[in-house]
Amino acid sequence: MINQPSGEKMFKWAADLFPICRSITGPGVRQTLAYLKKELPDLVVHSVATGTPAFDWEIPDEWTIRDAYIEDESGKRIVDFIKSNLHVVGYSTPIDLWLDLAELDAHLHSVPDKPSAIPYVTSYYTRTWGFCISHEQRQALKPGRYRAVIDSDLKPGILNYAELVIHGDTAEEILLSTYVCHPTMANNELSGPVVTTALAQWLLSLPRRRYTYRIVFVPETIGAIVYLSRNAEHMKKCTVAGFVLTCVGDDRTYSYLPSRKGGTLADRAAEHVLKHIAGKYDRYSYLERGSDERQYCSPGIDLPVCSVMRSKYGTYPEYHTSLDDLSVITPGGLSGAFGTYARIIELIEMNRTYKEVFPCEPRLGKRGLYNMTSLDKSDLLVNILAYADGSADLIALAELIGEDAIKVDAVAQTLLAAKLLQIVD
Amino acid sequence: MINQPSGEKMFKWAADLFPICRSITGPGVRQTLAYLKKELPDLVVHSVATGTPAFDWEIPDEWTIRDAYIEDESGKRIVDFIKSNLHVVGYSTPIDLWLDLAELDAHLHSVPDKPSAIPYVTSYYTRTWGFCISHEQRQALKPGRYRAVIDSDLKPGILNYAELVIHGDTAEEILLSTYVCHPTMANNELSGPVVTTALAQWLLSLPRRRYTYRIVFVPETIGAIVYLSRNAEHMKKCTVAGFVLTCVGDDRTYSYLPSRKGGTLADRAAEHVLKHIAGKYDRYSYLERGSDERQYCSPGIDLPVCSVMRSKYGTYPEYHTSLDDLSVITPGGLSGAFGTYARIIELIEMNRTYKEVFPCEPRLGKRGLYNMTSLDKSDLLVNILAYADGSADLIALAELIGEDAIKVDAVAQTLLAAKLLQIVD
Amino acid sequence: MINQPSGEKMFKWAADLFPICRSITGPGVRQTLAYLKKELPDLVVHSVATGTPAFDWEIPDEWTIRDAYIEDESGKRIVDFIKSNLHVVGYSTPIDLWLDLAELDAHLHSVPDKPSAIPYVTSYYTRTWGFCISHEQRQALKPGRYRAVIDSDLKPGILNYAELVIHGDTAEEILLSTYVCHPTMANNELSGPVVTTALAQWLLSLPRRRYTYRIVFVPETIGAIVYLSRNAEHMKKCTVAGFVLTCVGDDRTYSYLPSRKGGTLADRAAEHVLKHIAGKYDRYSYLERGSDERQYCSPGIDLPVCSVMRSKYGTYPEYHTSLDDLSVITPGGLSGAFGTYARIIELIEMNRTYKEVFPCEPRLGKRGLYNMTSLDKSDLLVNILAYADGSADLIALAELIGEDAIKVDAVAQTLLAAKLLQIVD
Repeated sequence: MINQPSGEKMFKWAADLFPICRSITGPGVRQTLAYLKKELPDLVVHSVATGTPAFDWEIPDEWTIRDAYIEDESGKRIVDFIKSNLHVVGYSTPIDLWLDLAELDAHLHSVPDKPSAIPYVTSYYTRTWGFCISHEQRQALKPGRYRAVIDSDLKPGILNYAELVIHGDTAEEILLSTYVCHPTMANNELSGPVVTTALAQWLLSLPRRRYTYRIVFVPETIGAIVYLSRNAEHMKKCTVAGFVLTCVGDDRTYSYLPSRKGGTLADRAAEHVLKHIAGKYDRYSYLERGSDERQYCSPGIDLPVCSVMRSKYGTYPEYHTSLDDLSVITPGGLSGAFGTYARIIELIEMNRTYKEVFPCEPRLGKRGLYNMTSLDKSDLLVNILAYADGSADLIALAELIGEDAIKVDAVAQTLLAAKLLQIVD
Repeated sequence: MINQPSGEKMFKWAADLFPICRSITGPGVRQTLAYLKKELPDLVVHSVATGTPAFDWEIPDEWTIRDAYIEDESGKRIVDFIKSNLHVVGYSTPIDLWLDLAELDAHLHSVPDKPSAIPYVTSYYTRTWGFCISHEQRQALKPGRYRAVIDSDLKPGILNYAELVIHGDTAEEILLSTYVCHPTMANNELSGPVVTTALAQWLLSLPRRRYTYRIVFVPETIGAIVYLSRNAEHMKKCTVAGFVLTCVGDDRTYSYLPSRKGGTLADRAAEHVLKHIAGKYDRYSYLERGSDERQYCSPGIDLPVCSVMRSKYGTYPEYHTSLDDLSVITPGGLSGAFGTYARIIELIEMNRTYKEVFPCEPRLGKRGLYNMTSLDKSDLLVNILAYADGSADLIALAELIGEDAIKVDAVAQTLLAAKLLQIVD
Repeated sequence: MINQPSGEKMFKWAADLFPICRSITGPGVRQTLAYLKKELPDLVVHSVATGTPAFDWEIPDEWTIRDAYIEDESGKRIVDFIKSNLHVVGYSTPIDLWLDLAELDAHLHSVPDKPSAIPYVTSYYTRTWGFCISHEQRQALKPGRYRAVIDSDLKPGILNYAELVIHGDTAEEILLSTYVCHPTMANNELSGPVVTTALAQWLLSLPRRRYTYRIVFVPETIGAIVYLSRNAEHMKKCTVAGFVLTCVGDDRTYSYLPSRKGGTLADRAAEHVLKHIAGKYDRYSYLERGSDERQYCSPGIDLPVCSVMRSKYGTYPEYHTSLDDLSVITPGGLSGAFGTYARIIELIEMNRTYKEVFPCEPRLGKRGLYNMTSLDKSDLLVNILAYADGSADLIALAELIGEDAIKVDAVAQTLLAAKLLQIVD
């Protein structure tokens, strides 16, 4: 039913964007948004100046990184930003220093139990500098003098984010939010923007939409906070469901992280679809949250936002290291996530509340809706009529009947056409 | 406590009614209702003319069946309505045709996995004709010419149902509904009317009743719909509990089918009694409904109606075939069902909401309600006083205390007499 | 955090009070209250005259017991009140009779399955007399003549109880109730008054208290009823939580008996603390109640009162016999109960409802509340902010987060000081 984009196309987008060194501000974010705007021409890229307040926060200085390396005494680059932009701690201040090993080591980050991985480390709000290297390399460093160079700027500038509002029949909105602030990582960065972009293209291709879609690409945390500081009042009025798209690229599992209190339309649709598409999936607690639902579901904002993922951040071995490369995500993983979100959206679009028109069961036979002999059993159609009491929406109806809501909707449409059901929401 | 009719008497009624060829209309229903009226002289038999509208339905033509048979070329009756009225498909049109085997076979019904059984088949609303035979016989039929004769009428007439309203102290009503439209079958037809008749006789014998009883004998589905089209507005105002009596004749198990949403007074009383009388019983979902609760609990009617059965329709091997004969039901099975329903009714009659009269525990000793030494343990009496807070009715009180409500009521009566409890409903 | 009294001090109080022959009235209660008043000088001892009505009750005659014994024909005292005041049935009428063994035996009480124990028996409201002896002794009694002497008075007098109201910042009250009416028994009598006395001393030592504390020492049942007959209207308005302190002296387990419907602030605080202090504890049903919660939770009073115990009355082998002596209670058992109650009280004192001040997460770093690198995980502080939505009180917040509320409070205080949380109750 869904006009499925190829997983290969999403994978290619991710591969194109992979080398860019993104951070919460700076040219990397702009390059990334510019690339996505080619796919979504109506995407609006916003700029917010350093120092602009956003609730308890303000926009930080913009960070530009050009080069960074560690040379040994022989002038050999033993750590080189050109080879992996994960080597430099995000938001490192500019330096050019000769240090002995102990002094250098105080600025190194590595992960002992993943000895070959370069970890991903940032320090947005505390001025410092550092390098991330594999633990193997760190342990092999010999005493001596090292030159550490970081060619960066950290000064007033702008923060960028992008949004695309796709209007529907009503002003009620569904939010799709993803982030664009991590450097060269695949599942925990690029899977989100590319699946979101594919969903936006699909939504634009639909002849009509019941709901309006608010699609945002933001730097995580500060970007979501800035976005909410400008849009929360409107969003609180209009948002019926929302989703944070992150880690939607591998093909090992499906994961679900509920909204703060759970049970919202977003949660109900997500779980219904996961149950019928994936069967088994990993169900987390809101205590295990970690992305922008932290802002969307915060008590002062309280939007109905949950997150459906493939392997959740923090749970897969490559997470937040150089191992989270293009080998972690797959065309199948991306298109599985796309299909799941498209099905969730379809379900919310079709989620009406029905009520039977006639007291007692209607006469199905005269409408060609019943087989002739009494050997036949009650079926889905009869069960929909039996439970359609004007209080259960389609998702609740499907859960009561124990059937996939997509199937229930198909039959409900038949009953609606036969004037045996009415919409009461 | 209950003036129990003999299971033998109910069995005899069933045996007397067994040979009659009932359908949703026609002389069979009238003969059956006339027989029951001998036992319940105040039973009122109603007639509704063909074409009368009833919600989404209208009364169908009346069907009269006089004879039906299949002859082989030698003139031998190989299938004969006189031997079993299940042989003819209910509402078959009149015919007299010579057919070859293939033509005949298109009008035959049998059940391959019950090779000796004649199935029960009807086609009320699609004009056709057919014969039901054992699968053994069907497979033994030889090529050749056959004469199929059905001597029936299908023309404007009447539909009959009967009702008996037994007035009580209040206008609030308890509904007992059963059906009278199946031909020669025992558990899935006659058990319902005979247990209902016995319950009506018992209710009439009581010196007084708190509730008014509405007892209806209707053709299944169309009869219930017609009845509701005439009485639903009144019943919605007055009905506190209702039950569909069907399949109440065998002695293999007890079954419970809840009302649509469950938790009504009918459901609570039924489950409490089944737990204390039967211990174990088969608990079904409303998804597995199949009798007139489909009408009574439909969203536009929404009465508090559930069903307590012995072996539920559709679950026992003889169901809807000639095997469901008088060997399936037993005097013990019928009287067990009677006793269970009588106990449920008694429980609803005695289901008052109590509140303790005095703040703190009352002094039981001065009323002769307490043993003298402190070695004695708290007992049922003390627990009733402890929980009687004016919010829990007798059933809830019994569930809180973990005792049979009949026992709780006996002690509550003592406390009421001692002016330690008051009724607050 | 809590200024813990020594278990030894509580044990000494219990040992001092152990020999006194208490009953629901009489000099034993007065001696006991006089002893406690030395520890709590502001304790007010009340007297209520025989015949004074109290709801469904009235104050009984006062009982004074001076001596009681059984002599054999040789004049030897074979049962002697001086050796154990449990030997005489509480409220025995005065007698001086010669009886043969059969006549005597009709007035003897013993426990066959605890052959060495003298049981505790009373007959407050039915005039009789009796002796309690070990089953071993009873079975060894030889036919012959015995002289039974009870030197008691049973005549109009007074009933005593004591109360101490410790004022706090608000008029809302926490009730601590214990009883002072059992003779020489340790866990099921003296543990309650001594732990309650220690709690009162601790509460008095606090620089300030949010709540007012109502601490009552009453004869069980009649004392609580009299107390409520005088104070219930006030207590219904003011009481936010209450506890019955009984059987708080041994060190074998912790027990919890809920209020009638459970879920009150008292219940929630008690269970939260037991879970975090004791881990495992015995959870009873209100059906198993047995002390003054019977009055405090009765439907007409309905205070939020539960009971936290060590080994619950009726469940440990020494209960209600001479075996419940000072060897059953321990300094550690008493101080464990004290600490648990103190922690419950502290929790209720600190149980505020918080709401996050800023929409979205606040910026922790600028307040020194966040470590600098993104490798750090969300912690307690972040979770409190995430769930503090103005609907969950501290206990609910701690349950949501899965942490001890004491820890949650410590962090909440930091957030309050940082103006990131506000109190909204």
